[in-house]
Amino acid sequence: MSISRPLPLRQVNVTDPFWRQEVSLVRREVIPYQWEALNDRVPGAAPSYFMHNMRAAARAVRARKAGQYFPLTQGVTGITSFPPEGAAPDPDYFYGFVFQDSDGYKWIEAVSYQLILQDDPALRRAAQEAVDAIREAQEEDGYLDTFYTLTGVENAFTNLRDNHELYCFGHLTEAAVAWKQATGQTDLLDAACRFAGCIMRRFGPGRERGCPGHEIAEMALFRLYEETGDVRYRDLALFFLDVRGTEPSTFALEENRRRVRQGLPELPVTAARYAYHQADVPVRETTEARGHAVRQMYLAAGMADAARLTGDGEMLAACERLWRSVTREKLYVTGGVGGTHVGEAFSLPYDLPADTAYSETCAAVGLCFFARRMLELSPLAEYADVMEQALYNTVPAGMAMDGKSFFYVNPLAADPAYCEKDERLAHVKAVRQKWFPCACCPPNIARLLSSLGQYIWTGTEDTLYLHLYIANETEARLNGRPLSLRLDADLTKDGRAALTVTKGEAEGTLAFRVPGWSGGKYTASASWDEGLTLPASPDGYLRLTRRWQAGDRVTFDFPMPARLLAAHPMVREMTHQVCFAKGPFVYCAEEKDNGPRLFLLRVPLNAAETAETFRAAVAGSELPALRVPAYRAELPEGDALYRPAGPERLTETVLTLIPYFAWNNRGKGEMRVWLPVKG
Amino acid sequence: MSISRPLPLRQVNVTDPFWRQEVSLVRREVIPYQWEALNDRVPGAAPSYFMHNMRAAARAVRARKAGQYFPLTQGVTGITSFPPEGAAPDPDYFYGFVFQDSDGYKWIEAVSYQLILQDDPALRRAAQEAVDAIREAQEEDGYLDTFYTLTGVENAFTNLRDNHELYCFGHLTEAAVAWKQATGQTDLLDAACRFAGCIMRRFGPGRERGCPGHEIAEMALFRLYEETGDVRYRDLALFFLDVRGTEPSTFALEENRRRVRQGLPELPVTAARYAYHQADVPVRETTEARGHAVRQMYLAAGMADAARLTGDGEMLAACERLWRSVTREKLYVTGGVGGTHVGEAFSLPYDLPADTAYSETCAAVGLCFFARRMLELSPLAEYADVMEQALYNTVPAGMAMDGKSFFYVNPLAADPAYCEKDERLAHVKAVRQKWFPCACCPPNIARLLSSLGQYIWTGTEDTLYLHLYIANETEARLNGRPLSLRLDADLTKDGRAALTVTKGEAEGTLAFRVPGWSGGKYTASASWDEGLTLPASPDGYLRLTRRWQAGDRVTFDFPMPARLLAAHPMVREMTHQVCFAKGPFVYCAEEKDNGPRLFLLRVPLNAAETAETFRAAVAGSELPALRVPAYRAELPEGDALYRPAGPERLTETVLTLIPYFAWNNRGKGEMRVWLPVKG
Repeated sequence: MSISRPLPLRQVNVTDPFWRQEVSLVRREVIPYQWEALNDRVPGAAPSYFMHNMRAAARAVRARKAGQYFPLTQGVTGITSFPPEGAAPDPDYFYGFVFQDSDGYKWIEAVSYQLILQDDPALRRAAQEAVDAIREAQEEDGYLDTFYTLTGVENAFTNLRDNHELYCFGHLTEAAVAWKQATGQTDLLDAACRFAGCIMRRFGPGRERGCPGHEIAEMALFRLYEETGDVRYRDLALFFLDVRGTEPSTFALEENRRRVRQGLPELPVTAARYAYHQADVPVRETTEARGHAVRQMYLAAGMADAARLTGDGEMLAACERLWRSVTREKLYVTGGVGGTHVGEAFSLPYDLPADTAYSETCAAVGLCFFARRMLELSPLAEYADVMEQALYNTVPAGMAMDGKSFFYVNPLAADPAYCEKDERLAHVKAVRQKWFPCACCPPNIARLLSSLGQYIWTGTEDTLYLHLYIANETEARLNGRPLSLRLDADLTKDGRAALTVTKGEAEGTLAFRVPGWSGGKYTASASWDEGLTLPASPDGYLRLTRRWQAGDRVTFDFPMPARLLAAHPMVREMTHQVCFAKGPFVYCAEEKDNGPRLFLLRVPLNAAETAETFRAAVAGSELPALRVPAYRAELPEGDALYRPAGPERLTETVLTLIPYFAWNNRGKGEMRVWLPVKG
Repeated sequence: MSISRPLPLRQVNVTDPFWRQEVSLVRREVIPYQWEALNDRVPGAAPSYFMHNMRAAARAVRARKAGQYFPLTQGVTGITSFPPEGAAPDPDYFYGFVFQDSDGYKWIEAVSYQLILQDDPALRRAAQEAVDAIREAQEEDGYLDTFYTLTGVENAFTNLRDNHELYCFGHLTEAAVAWKQATGQTDLLDAACRFAGCIMRRFGPGRERGCPGHEIAEMALFRLYEETGDVRYRDLALFFLDVRGTEPSTFALEENRRRVRQGLPELPVTAARYAYHQADVPVRETTEARGHAVRQMYLAAGMADAARLTGDGEMLAACERLWRSVTREKLYVTGGVGGTHVGEAFSLPYDLPADTAYSETCAAVGLCFFARRMLELSPLAEYADVMEQALYNTVPAGMAMDGKSFFYVNPLAADPAYCEKDERLAHVKAVRQKWFPCACCPPNIARLLSSLGQYIWTGTEDTLYLHLYIANETEARLNGRPLSLRLDADLTKDGRAALTVTKGEAEGTLAFRVPGWSGGKYTASASWDEGLTLPASPDGYLRLTRRWQAGDRVTFDFPMPARLLAAHPMVREMTHQVCFAKGPFVYCAEEKDNGPRLFLLRVPLNAAETAETFRAAVAGSELPALRVPAYRAELPEGDALYRPAGPERLTETVLTLIPYFAWNNRGKGEMRVWLPVKG
């Protein structure tokens, strides 16, 4: 391990034209819209009930303190509670999913990052209103979860597997640390610490065994430890990691306690049943990414934090095995993960279907969390390659280019006629939705993009690693001395990048990632050496050590030709199919440009060489696009369903491709990433 | 229309080596095994409860007649009733699916056909025991359905959509007519007629509107009419057909009556909701095969009967549209239908996935019913081609070559590792099962194969049509005069066929189908004309009119090369894939012969020309098999999931293929019908 850390968000100003637009969409559209959603003020959208629940819980806590009666929420079914159809919500009842509190926490986290980037008193006031509501909903002992406060707090911590209170705690903690970093206020941090204290009185070494059903508390607790210095938080996170997947399964034990109360016989307590929760084997023994993809990614991020903070080699090796499992066997070319909707989960190795893909937006966000943490452990260009793959493709695909609608599921092929009629595709939407009853994805995009600056650089005492070619201005430190840097780049246009020292003087190393998409090739020059040559290290970084001073400038040109990609032959679904990429962007064909029946298109194997790059106007933006000579299979004469095999009859056509993330911004229609090759 | 009818089963003796074996498997294995199952005497198999329910219902009927108390079955959930886990069945309760009575009816039908082929006193006694049990379970007013008799007969006919009593009536009637034809006894026929009378007192012109949720009563009633000459049965069948799909939907009306009783608000009564039941549009307006595939096929068979018996041109046109929808857009190359497990249903046009196929055995049986009836309406070779496609492939695939296990679902690609682990493939078994809780398929194979003689020939007054080249001896009539014929053929070996007149003398026409797989080519010779030439009619039949007499002999040689087939390009799943066929058999590759990872095999487009035929021993039988020079894609070096597209690295291999129906008779392993072409 050679540990580096992200630069503080406040010190990285993203100036990149593409990403500035994405980040500002989040600020202008997503965050205000979500505040309305959290207050149930969006006509026609599923209510969030976040503020509703917080206010009801606050009244319940006050009533209980005053010894007054407060009604318990009735009519909870499984993990949801909704008003009877047509009825008005009861102001005192809990509504939504059991994890509804997290909606607001994620929003506060995103708001905090945006306030760090640029203050906004009105936005700060709205967030303060949420923070105050949260604090008032906290129980006297620090417990904070409106579901249990409103349905019977005596049942708290009895169903960690399904009921998400440790998940909500994790998001609360992420929000609290971000809020403190943005505003300097400890109000929300105090609430998170008090809740952590409540949890620690129940769980931990020498106390009850247990771990979260949906991970995130692990990485949140490590962050809380790093913010406060209180090692108890680190140790609780390690405890959660260590309990996970061990025998007897705590999920099974708690279920048996519930069953005994209901007079039902006990079930076996083996961990093997809990692959969905990544609790089937101890985390150090993990060999394969499995189960619910978001959970797996959050767990992997927490494991990487643990490896960094403890130097635990077994944990590091488990992280590396998970990384290989994801990236060698279970990763969509668009940087998405989750091959099956059953359990929103990782499928079997090499099972990466295009049209039935799950590829949840949140899971791609989680993959960025994991990849950034792997980069912190060791600067390997492949970690950044995969992070970039998710960041330029599935993550922005999750949000419309006007910031007003969202994908939860990100298929690699869509035909609206099928999505709308075939129940096997019920999870796939051909059109982005305004909001979701389970609204996890939009705020996850918001918190990732609002903190984008933390994914570009990491640094050690004497080295600054540039992982992503996202134009930015940075106030960094090198060997203790401040150094202001400016990166100019625009990957929507070409692979050129220029790093300029704008202020300061410091000795040390700048390390530049050689992007995977460049094929390892580049040309470089420096203000002091026109013919600069730099061999890449085995880790994929170009290192340049000198006494840096204002005016120093290094430029790179990474070749960015259109590329034609094939999947590993073990990916049976992609046999004889190819897709296009250029730089970090994966491309897709849309019906809008290419007419219907995209599956009849045929791509010659030399298509990358003949592809022509141009700028296309999509939803008001200029985007990189490709024009490629290709073919279209003709429909044969006659209507026989089966006929003697022979060469297809083809007509020439020109294929137009746009970046995958931009699909479905020009109305409803077919889309395909993978296209059949010309036979 | 030019109506022909099947020859009586008693007059067609199947001598074909392949089919004799299949028919005798049914007699030796399936029928005795199923009798044990009907009596709940098969250890480890799901009990049928057929005899249990009949006996309980008989006691209930007697008790009610005597004014005595009889307990109503408790604990029914939806359309099933089972004893509590671990508990013994209550002897007085109904168990199984609501349509459980049909299991026994289908068995009696199959037994009857077998008794026609060859008497067997022990088998006849067993069937008589079942017949007697059924008669004792009949209510005084003729009603006969153990589910309602045991759960509350006052609810009879209140849920035609879901509760299958008219379906059970249909199977009872099919059994009753077959039993009468086999034994001359009218005992079961009387029961069926009494039940029909009970139904007619409630439903029919001027009485209540209604139609079966699961069709079969239509074709059964037509058969009952043809057996008895009583036009009321024909008219009830026509009534059921005419009510179906009209507004307001009778399924919706009956549901609303149930809802009103439960105090629930009424729902809209539009028919459009009932596509699953083929009750969304009037049957004469049908344009597309849709909904539950077995129901659609049974309905289509009933519609074809209606067209034949009434000369109704609209009904005929609807049958022809259905035929085109099935065969041009929704038919697996194996003769299976039903592209989706959701509703066990027809999917959208051209949606024919291989590994997630439903292709229920019963639906292929139903397709044979439909095709045979279309042949009766007009002798078009394509009807027989499709019937043959189902009969030689999916139907026998449904039964192991030892007759001891069965497929309900017939995928065109299977990988046990996936079927067993992927919940999206939960409906697909990689290994035949001994029995099913819903045991519709094994008895359906039994009744089809036991009556196979009825699918080979149809005749008019002056013409005998030979539809299938299944060797047989026939006692036919031509222009009123008896004529004994013998067909020699063995399509497992070659396309030669010889028809010999063995007795009698009659003037008239013999019409021989030119099989689709021969490409329309053939050579012929006759005992009186060595160089016989016969132009095929546009309908695909070769007609030979003369005064036939003993010793006349006509031989044909239909070319039967191995064929390489491709699907219509609209079948997106089959892009760049091919499959092999030879004569009526579709072939598949199994892991047993070709090693694992069949998806890596690559087939050159000239494979049909280089294919070598041989006889392979499979599960003790000699089967036709193919050896084909082909290729296998090499796994590349390195583990990158995506890489620059280029020609695949291939190694030469020899592909071994066996008939599809014979797959999974040599242990568990991968199977594929469709294989990728060599790029």
